[in-house]
Amino acid sequence: MNIENPSFFIGKGDNDGFISFGSGQPDLPPPKEVYDILPDYRSFKYGLIQGQANLREALAKQYPNANPDNFVITNGASEAIDLALRALYQPGAKIFLPKPYYYSYPHNVYLARMEPVYYELENGKINFETFKKDIQNCRIVLINSPSNPTGTIQDLDVLKKIEKLAQDLGIYIISDEVYKDLIYERENYLLENGNVLTVNSFSKTFAMCGFRVGYLYAREKAIIKKVIDMKNHTSMNTNILGQEMAYEATKVPRSRIEAQTKIWKERRDLIYNGLRDLGLDLWKPEGAFYVFPKMKNPSKVVSDLYCKYKMIVYNGVWFGDSERVRFSYALDAEKITEGLKRLKEYLSKEYKEN
Amino acid sequence: MNIENPSFFIGKGDNDGFISFGSGQPDLPPPKEVYDILPDYRSFKYGLIQGQANLREALAKQYPNANPDNFVITNGASEAIDLALRALYQPGAKIFLPKPYYYSYPHNVYLARMEPVYYELENGKINFETFKKDIQNCRIVLINSPSNPTGTIQDLDVLKKIEKLAQDLGIYIISDEVYKDLIYERENYLLENGNVLTVNSFSKTFAMCGFRVGYLYAREKAIIKKVIDMKNHTSMNTNILGQEMAYEATKVPRSRIEAQTKIWKERRDLIYNGLRDLGLDLWKPEGAFYVFPKMKNPSKVVSDLYCKYKMIVYNGVWFGDSERVRFSYALDAEKITEGLKRLKEYLSKEYKEN
Repeated sequence: MNIENPSFFIGKGDNDGFISFGSGQPDLPPPKEVYDILPDYRSFKYGLIQGQANLREALAKQYPNANPDNFVITNGASEAIDLALRALYQPGAKIFLPKPYYYSYPHNVYLARMEPVYYELENGKINFETFKKDIQNCRIVLINSPSNPTGTIQDLDVLKKIEKLAQDLGIYIISDEVYKDLIYERENYLLENGNVLTVNSFSKTFAMCGFRVGYLYAREKAIIKKVIDMKNHTSMNTNILGQEMAYEATKVPRSRIEAQTKIWKERRDLIYNGLRDLGLDLWKPEGAFYVFPKMKNPSKVVSDLYCKYKMIVYNGVWFGDSERVRFSYALDAEKITEGLKRLKEYLSKEYKEN
Repeated sequence: MNIENPSFFIGKGDNDGFISFGSGQPDLPPPKEVYDILPDYRSFKYGLIQGQANLREALAKQYPNANPDNFVITNGASEAIDLALRALYQPGAKIFLPKPYYYSYPHNVYLARMEPVYYELENGKINFETFKKDIQNCRIVLINSPSNPTGTIQDLDVLKKIEKLAQDLGIYIISDEVYKDLIYERENYLLENGNVLTVNSFSKTFAMCGFRVGYLYAREKAIIKKVIDMKNHTSMNTNILGQEMAYEATKVPRSRIEAQTKIWKERRDLIYNGLRDLGLDLWKPEGAFYVFPKMKNPSKVVSDLYCKYKMIVYNGVWFGDSERVRFSYALDAEKITEGLKRLKEYLSKEYKEN
């Protein structure tokens, strides 16, 4: 059985005894504030293409020296990336992507009619010397820290060097920081200067993936204007109620988000130690909710676990790494433990035969 | 004062004594069913990229010989058009657009990195002989009947000839039928064959513009697959609650939609007769909610009416016609009457000086 991409698993694994380490979405519910507004909601007309003023005002308070004009509210981080790339389009331009990558990135670049080139992560980390050499002819670099699928964050000094390098070379940075609140080792580092376009989302922090509310933040007003002009024709305002719910989410106290991060960290420790105990080779995740162990013949692992052990895991190949398998640990401890048990059985019974 | 495009008016004209014949959105509220589900709604996770099964099943019943696999639910008709064009992308391809056009169409074509060419409407109608000649080297033709901004529908025999011509030539038709339920003279004619991609929306019929729920319907499964593959990377599922509300809208009895059309028809008659009585040259709208009279120096008319008469109207130039002005009559009779009164004053006092 050859499972070709993650969409095979959509709608699978939520019941029937499956344990899903597949899809990257929180199992925790959104904060109550977010849906408390539903019963009385009565606004159905077009909103501002740029996004509702209250939401952008709230976001501006979260970013140093920002104002509401620096934001566009989008249909999730996906649309923010799509529009950012299209806004910066130049014929034949090269876009510098991490490898392994979030599985949409290369597609986003192709769909914007440009060309991806890659910087290889070494155990999830950027090698700045190689990076510096290979970035030279690129128009845009995409940075994703904390990273999906690697679960790593990039070192502060490397991020600062990249900021400077990109500015010196006149290269745009698209910084996908959707896991900025799911980081265990330090505070998130906001990449920022005139060349940076920050992509973020309410999906992961506030567990509202299906509502598709994300945003683009940029200092350069000309980029924001261009993105609004495009969105006016490609999708118009982001769902008006989704934006109102996102606005409620901005009022959730920081302490509640930190309490959530604590839960993620416990799960991280559980699965990391569990996989290590099973003898797998992996690094300790520093952010997001993915572990990315080395495994022989990942496509067989994915298929075997699905067909014989009722377990969903994702093939590293989908993320540009043919020697690893991605486990999302957006699951409660009980399910993680059961998954590790099944995996142990698989490893002892069949895996060596790969 | 030079007002450059419709976005100038966003958020203006709903109060402060303004009469807005600007934005094309219903003033009527959505059916109660649509928001009755809000209080108990509790589903926040990713949905199917293609769209929720219940909604696609309900839509399949509205189209002859359709099944749920023929639909993709999108962020309004705008995203359906954007994705359809990008799915059919070929370098250098020409896209055949009506002129006057809905103001996004040329932008949509450019944003898909293709080239617009135009067929001129004569008093809002297609001249099939010219159309037939000029379509030859195009990859896609866009048909919009009922039309924004002209308010016209195309004759049945012309639509049938276009269907056949496009099939013979292997040209795709994107048929934007968002006003299919706002048509006064006959039933809507669904363009259909293997080459047709139908675009539609819940915005106009069910007065839920801000929720951005539209869809693409196509017989050709390969196109649907391609659009889903793209949407997976460019926006993922359409807002999950918006889809549930759209599903509720599909249950609204036809008689209620017809009652609504009756109201639109009364307004159409009021404004059409009113503008005729003021001596303006225009045709009688057959669908949608726009009248498109000839006026001298439209950009001055737009600016004068806005600055001196607290009235919003749209410049025909924004729709590719430099000799007309668009009035949306999505307003109650009282406001239409007041608007006509102000226009009468303008016409008698200042207009002749143009």
